[in-house]
Amino acid sequence: MISTTIVLNEERNVTLTAYIQDTDGEFGFSKRPAILILPGGGYAICSDREADPVAAAYLKAGFQSIILRYTVKAKGGWPHQLEDYENAMAIIEENAEEWHIDPSKIAVAGFSAGGHLTACAATLAKHKPTAAVLAYPAILEDIVDSCQPNMPYPYQHVTPQTSPCFIVAARDDRTVHVKNALAFEQALAENGVAFESHIYSYGGHGFSTAEDWINTNSVCPRLPEWIKYSVDWLGEVMGKLTRNGFTEPVSALSLNADYSPVLSVECSLNHLCKQNDEAKDILAPMFTGIEAVAAARGFDVELLKASVGNNTAREIMEMVQIPKDTIFEIDKKLHDIVNILEV
Amino acid sequence: MISTTIVLNEERNVTLTAYIQDTDGEFGFSKRPAILILPGGGYAICSDREADPVAAAYLKAGFQSIILRYTVKAKGGWPHQLEDYENAMAIIEENAEEWHIDPSKIAVAGFSAGGHLTACAATLAKHKPTAAVLAYPAILEDIVDSCQPNMPYPYQHVTPQTSPCFIVAARDDRTVHVKNALAFEQALAENGVAFESHIYSYGGHGFSTAEDWINTNSVCPRLPEWIKYSVDWLGEVMGKLTRNGFTEPVSALSLNADYSPVLSVECSLNHLCKQNDEAKDILAPMFTGIEAVAAARGFDVELLKASVGNNTAREIMEMVQIPKDTIFEIDKKLHDIVNILEV
Amino acid sequence: MISTTIVLNEERNVTLTAYIQDTDGEFGFSKRPAILILPGGGYAICSDREADPVAAAYLKAGFQSIILRYTVKAKGGWPHQLEDYENAMAIIEENAEEWHIDPSKIAVAGFSAGGHLTACAATLAKHKPTAAVLAYPAILEDIVDSCQPNMPYPYQHVTPQTSPCFIVAARDDRTVHVKNALAFEQALAENGVAFESHIYSYGGHGFSTAEDWINTNSVCPRLPEWIKYSVDWLGEVMGKLTRNGFTEPVSALSLNADYSPVLSVECSLNHLCKQNDEAKDILAPMFTGIEAVAAARGFDVELLKASVGNNTAREIMEMVQIPKDTIFEIDKKLHDIVNILEV
Amino acid sequence: MISTTIVLNEERNVTLTAYIQDTDGEFGFSKRPAILILPGGGYAICSDREADPVAAAYLKAGFQSIILRYTVKAKGGWPHQLEDYENAMAIIEENAEEWHIDPSKIAVAGFSAGGHLTACAATLAKHKPTAAVLAYPAILEDIVDSCQPNMPYPYQHVTPQTSPCFIVAARDDRTVHVKNALAFEQALAENGVAFESHIYSYGGHGFSTAEDWINTNSVCPRLPEWIKYSVDWLGEVMGKLTRNGFTEPVSALSLNADYSPVLSVECSLNHLCKQNDEAKDILAPMFTGIEAVAAARGFDVELLKASVGNNTAREIMEMVQIPKDTIFEIDKKLHDIVNILEV
Repeated sequence: MISTTIVLNEERNVTLTAYIQDTDGEFGFSKRPAILILPGGGYAICSDREADPVAAAYLKAGFQSIILRYTVKAKGGWPHQLEDYENAMAIIEENAEEWHIDPSKIAVAGFSAGGHLTACAATLAKHKPTAAVLAYPAILEDIVDSCQPNMPYPYQHVTPQTSPCFIVAARDDRTVHVKNALAFEQALAENGVAFESHIYSYGGHGFSTAEDWINTNSVCPRLPEWIKYSVDWLGEVMGKLTRNGFTEPVSALSLNADYSPVLSVECSLNHLCKQNDEAKDILAPMFTGIEAVAAARGFDVELLKASVGNNTAREIMEMVQIPKDTIFEIDKKLHDIVNILEV
Repeated sequence: MISTTIVLNEERNVTLTAYIQDTDGEFGFSKRPAILILPGGGYAICSDREADPVAAAYLKAGFQSIILRYTVKAKGGWPHQLEDYENAMAIIEENAEEWHIDPSKIAVAGFSAGGHLTACAATLAKHKPTAAVLAYPAILEDIVDSCQPNMPYPYQHVTPQTSPCFIVAARDDRTVHVKNALAFEQALAENGVAFESHIYSYGGHGFSTAEDWINTNSVCPRLPEWIKYSVDWLGEVMGKLTRNGFTEPVSALSLNADYSPVLSVECSLNHLCKQNDEAKDILAPMFTGIEAVAAARGFDVELLKASVGNNTAREIMEMVQIPKDTIFEIDKKLHDIVNILEV
Repeated sequence: MISTTIVLNEERNVTLTAYIQDTDGEFGFSKRPAILILPGGGYAICSDREADPVAAAYLKAGFQSIILRYTVKAKGGWPHQLEDYENAMAIIEENAEEWHIDPSKIAVAGFSAGGHLTACAATLAKHKPTAAVLAYPAILEDIVDSCQPNMPYPYQHVTPQTSPCFIVAARDDRTVHVKNALAFEQALAENGVAFESHIYSYGGHGFSTAEDWINTNSVCPRLPEWIKYSVDWLGEVMGKLTRNGFTEPVSALSLNADYSPVLSVECSLNHLCKQNDEAKDILAPMFTGIEAVAAARGFDVELLKASVGNNTAREIMEMVQIPKDTIFEIDKKLHDIVNILEV
Repeated sequence: MISTTIVLNEERNVTLTAYIQDTDGEFGFSKRPAILILPGGGYAICSDREADPVAAAYLKAGFQSIILRYTVKAKGGWPHQLEDYENAMAIIEENAEEWHIDPSKIAVAGFSAGGHLTACAATLAKHKPTAAVLAYPAILEDIVDSCQPNMPYPYQHVTPQTSPCFIVAARDDRTVHVKNALAFEQALAENGVAFESHIYSYGGHGFSTAEDWINTNSVCPRLPEWIKYSVDWLGEVMGKLTRNGFTEPVSALSLNADYSPVLSVECSLNHLCKQNDEAKDILAPMFTGIEAVAAARGFDVELLKASVGNNTAREIMEMVQIPKDTIFEIDKKLHDIVNILEV
C-alpha cells in the first residue's frame, strides 16, 4: 500500500491524501472501488477523527481510500468547498489507471459538515459519486447557516438523478438534530432514489467509525456495525469486488421505472394512472382485470386499486392472470410514450 | 412453557394466545417483560407468518409472547380493532401476576396493518405500551384508507407522550411505501419521542422476522438482524432482564427536558429562548457567558447560539465555565416556571 | 404452536415435551427440521435453564423443538439415559407425520451431562442424529466418572460414521475442563467427521444460550452468537428450511472420500498412498505428473508429495494438468477397489 | 498515517513495513497497540494476500500494523526466519516512542507458514509477543517438514509461559490439516495458557481476512467475522484502546494459579491434591468441609472431590462456607510453599 498527498490549493491548504492498495498478481483483479472521504468539523476544521480512521475501515474492505481536506471557512467560504470536491474527483479520475481504480465505482463518504458537502455532491455536483455515505449530515437551514453563509440546503436539491445514499445518525444527536437526516431521506423517498438508513437510539454527534478507540460518546452497542453495513450496501449499489472482479449491482435497489424517460410495465399503477389517455387505453386489459377481481371478491374497485397502487403494472397483470404475451405487447406499446413526471 | 388461548370476542373471532415461560427456581427472577404481537394482513386477515414466528423470536429473548388475533374487517370495522387491543392489554394486566409479567414492561409489536394498530396504540390508546415495535407500518392516508374506512392516520396523533418506537422497513416496499415509516419518524422527531429506525435497501413487504424459513422476499443480508436489534433496543427502553432482575433503562434515550411540565437546565437552548422573560433573566449568566466566548474568539453571537441550540443549558453553562453552584441555583429557579411547549 | 408432553417412563420420571409449529398454508412447506434437547445437570437433575430457553432459540429458527427430561441418577443409572434417548427418537419418528417433521433432519443438542449423552447418541446410538450440537460436553474419564459410574467415554467411540458435530465451550470452564471438548474434536478430526467448534476465551460452565436473561456467568461478548452459529451450521449439514422446502446440504463439509467403501479420485493423496499396488498402478499418471512438476521446479519429490498430501487425487491431477477424460477413467477404475481404512 | 519500510537484511531480502497512525491531538491518547504480521506461503514466498489486507484490518481497529517479510527458503533456512522475527521485534521496541506504540502491547499475527513462525514466537522466542493470532498454522511434523528441514514443531514447546493465543482454521483445510490447530490447542490447554479458538465448518486454506475481495475459497458465512473476533480478544488480553487510554485486561482469562511460583487459594483442588503434606495440612479445613457436605448429602467423597477438582480452593471453601478470615489465613500460609508443577 502506498500513501501519497497532492496539494490541490496551497493558499487554501486543500490536500488530497490517497492510500492506494495493490492489484493484480496474487489479487487476481486489476481495478478496485474508491471512496473519497470528507471529514467533518463545522467547516471550521477537517477533523482527524473522521479522516484516517475512516480510510482504514474502507481499506480493509478493499477500497482505495482518499481523504480530501477541503477549504475551511477561515480560508474561504462556499462554494470553495464544492470546488475542492470537484477538483478532487477530477484528479481521482485522471489517476484512475495509475491508482487501479474503476472510475465507475467512486463513492463519497462525509461526516457532519462533510456530510453536508457529500449531500451537495450527490445532488448538485458535476462529478456525482456512484454512491454516497452520509454520517450525521447537516441538511437543514438552521444548522447549515450556523456553519457559514450562502450554502445550499441539500434536501431542496434532490431529484431522481441524485446518487444512491446510505445515511447513519443517532437519535440523540444534539449538534445536528436527527431531523436533518430525516429531511434528506424524505426527499430521497419522494424522488425514488435508492437509499438505506440506520438511525440508532443513542450515540450523539461525531461518533466517526464508532470503534472504541475513536469514538468519544456513549454509543448504543449496535452502532459500531454501521461501517460494515455501509460496505455491504456499497457492494449492492456499485457491485462487490471479488477475486474475479466486480459482481453486478443488486437490481432490487431500483423500486420501479416511475422515473424513466419512457413508460413501461415496470412503472407503478399509481404513476400510470396519472399519465395520458393513450397510456390508459394501452393498459385497458389491466384495468378490466382489476375490475373482474374486485367483482369476484366483492371489493370496492377504487380501494383495490389504492391497495396495489405502488405495485408495478407487470406485477398487477400477473396477479390478474393476463397472459405473458399480452404483457409483452403492452410493454412494447408503453415504450413509445414519454413519461410525464409531474402531473 | 405453557400455551393458553383466551377468546376475547367469540362473534368477531378475537383471540389472545399467550406463551408463558417459567420464572423463579433456577431462573433467579420472578417477572419477565411481555410483548403483545399484532400480525398484519391488511385488516382482512391476521397473518400466521407474523404470529408464532415472532412469538418465538421474543421467547428466545426472555419475553412472555402474546398474540392478539383482532377483528378482521369482514367481522367489523374500526374502532373494533383498537377495542380488541385495549381488551388484550387489560387481560394481560389482570393476569400479570399469574403470567409472571412485570406490568411496567409490556411492549407491542405490529406488522403492516398490525403496525398501524401498534402506532394507534402508541399514540391514542388508553393502555399505552411501554415501547412499540413497528414493522413496515401503514401510516399515511392512502394506504390506511385502502384497508378500511374511518381509521386514524397515526402520524397526526404523535405527542411527547407517545411511546418510544422502533421502526423497521425496506426501502423497496411496494405495498406500504417507505414514506409511511418516514412520516411517523418525522412526527416522533418533532415531538422529542425516543426512537430507533432501520430502513434496509431492499426486502419488500411482509418479511416478518426475515428468517430464511419465514421470509418470502429477496431481502438484503443485513435485514435478518432487525429482530435482535429490536430486542436490544427494548432492553434499553424498558430495562434488560438479567438473572438478577431488570437493569435500569438507558437514560441517554431522553434527548432533553424540552417536553417536561416545568423548565430546567436540561432543556435545550433553542427551547429556553422561546420561553418568557422570567426564564431568560434567570439564565442571564449563560447568555453573558456565550457572549464572552463569542467576543474572545471573534464569533458572531447569533451564529454561536444557533450552533449550540440543541445543547442543554447545563451543557452550555459547563462549556462557558459557569460554576456548578450557580448552575444548581439556576436549575432550582427554572423549576418554578411552567414549560410552554407551543410558542 | 402447540405444546404436548408425553411420559416415556413414569417410574423414572422421563418425559418428552414437544413444541410443534404449524406448516402449510401461509408457510408454504409441509415439513420442518427437529431438534431434541438434552439439558445438563450432572445426571443429577435436568436443568430448566437448558430446556425451554434452548427450545425457544430453535423454534425461532423454524425447528420443532423437543425436550427430553431423561432419567436422573437417583432414579437409575446408565444405560437408562441412553435408552431414554432411543425411546425419544423412536417416538419422534413415529410422530414425524403428525408433528410435520422431516425424519431425515433430526438433530440433537445437549449441554454438559446432556452433552455427554449427545456425544453417546452421535457415536453409539441406534438412532444416530443427523447432526449433533454439544455445549461444554463431559467427554473424559474423570468428569464422566464423577457423574455416575459405568458410562462410556465418547471420544473412544468416534468412527467415520459418527454424526457431524458442532461444539461450543469456554476456555475458563472449571467444571468441565476445555480438554473435554478438545479430546472429542481430536477424535472427530482423526476420523474425518465434519465438525465446527467455537471455544471462547471466557464464559465458564453452564452458559446455556448465553442470553443475558439466562446466563449466570461473566461471558465474553462473542459468546451469545453461538446459537445462531449452530443454526447456520445445522442448515449447512441438514439443508436449510426455506419457504420452498429444504436446500441441499453444503457439500464442502465432506473433506474427502477417505472413509468411503471404495476408492475414488476424491480420496486424498496420503490415503491413496497407503492402498495396494493395484490402486497405485491406476494412479500412475498422477505420480508421473508430480515427478515432472518436481523436476521442472527443482523440488524434492517426497517433499512435494507431503505438501499436497491432504489434497484429493482429482485436485492434484488437475494441478499437474492431466486431461479430464483421463481423470474420469482413473476414477472409474478406482471404484472397483475396496477402500482399506487401516493400513 | 505514514508508511515506512526498513530493510532488515538486504541479502536475504528481509523487510519491515510499518503503517503508523497518529496519536494525541483529537485522538486523546498517546500510545497504540501494535501487531506484527507474518504472511504465509510455505516459507517459499511471503504472500501479498496475507500482508496489506491484514494490516488494513488491524489499522481499522486502532493498531499500528507492521508487516515482516522474512527470509524465504531460497534465501536461507531455519533459524533465519526466527532471527528475522527477533530483529523485527527489536526494531519495533527501539522505535516504540517514535511509532506511538505501547511496548507492552505488541501482538503477532501469522498465517500458515507464518502461523508456524508465530507459534515459534509465542513459545521459543526471546521477544515473546503479548498475544499471538494464528491462522491455519503449520504445527505438526509432516507439514512443517514439508516446508523446510530442521524447524521446531511448536506444540512440543508450549509451556505455561507461552503467549496467549487466538486460533482460527477451517475444518476442510486440505493443505494444513485441522489437526495442526487442534494439537496446538491441546498443548495450550494442558499448560493452562489462555486461548480462544474458532474452527469453521468450511473455508479451505489461505482465506486470509476472508473478505470477499481477498478470499479465494468458498467459505462458510460465519468465517469473515474472525478478524473482528480476534480484535475483541486482543482487547481482552492486552487491554482495549479507548480515547482515555487502555482498559485493564479481562482477568477471567487466567484460569487459576496452578502455574504460579508459589501456592495460593486460587490454585485448583486437583492441583493442590498433588502437592506436599504441608500444603494439605494447611488446607485441612477445606477437606473437612468437603467431607461434611458429602456426608450430609449422601455423596461419595472421592466423587465429590473429582466433580469440583477444577475449581479453585477459594471457590470450594466458599461453597462449604468456611469464613472469609480463615480463607485469608490459609491463603497466606500457602504463599510460603513453592508450587511443584510436575508431580
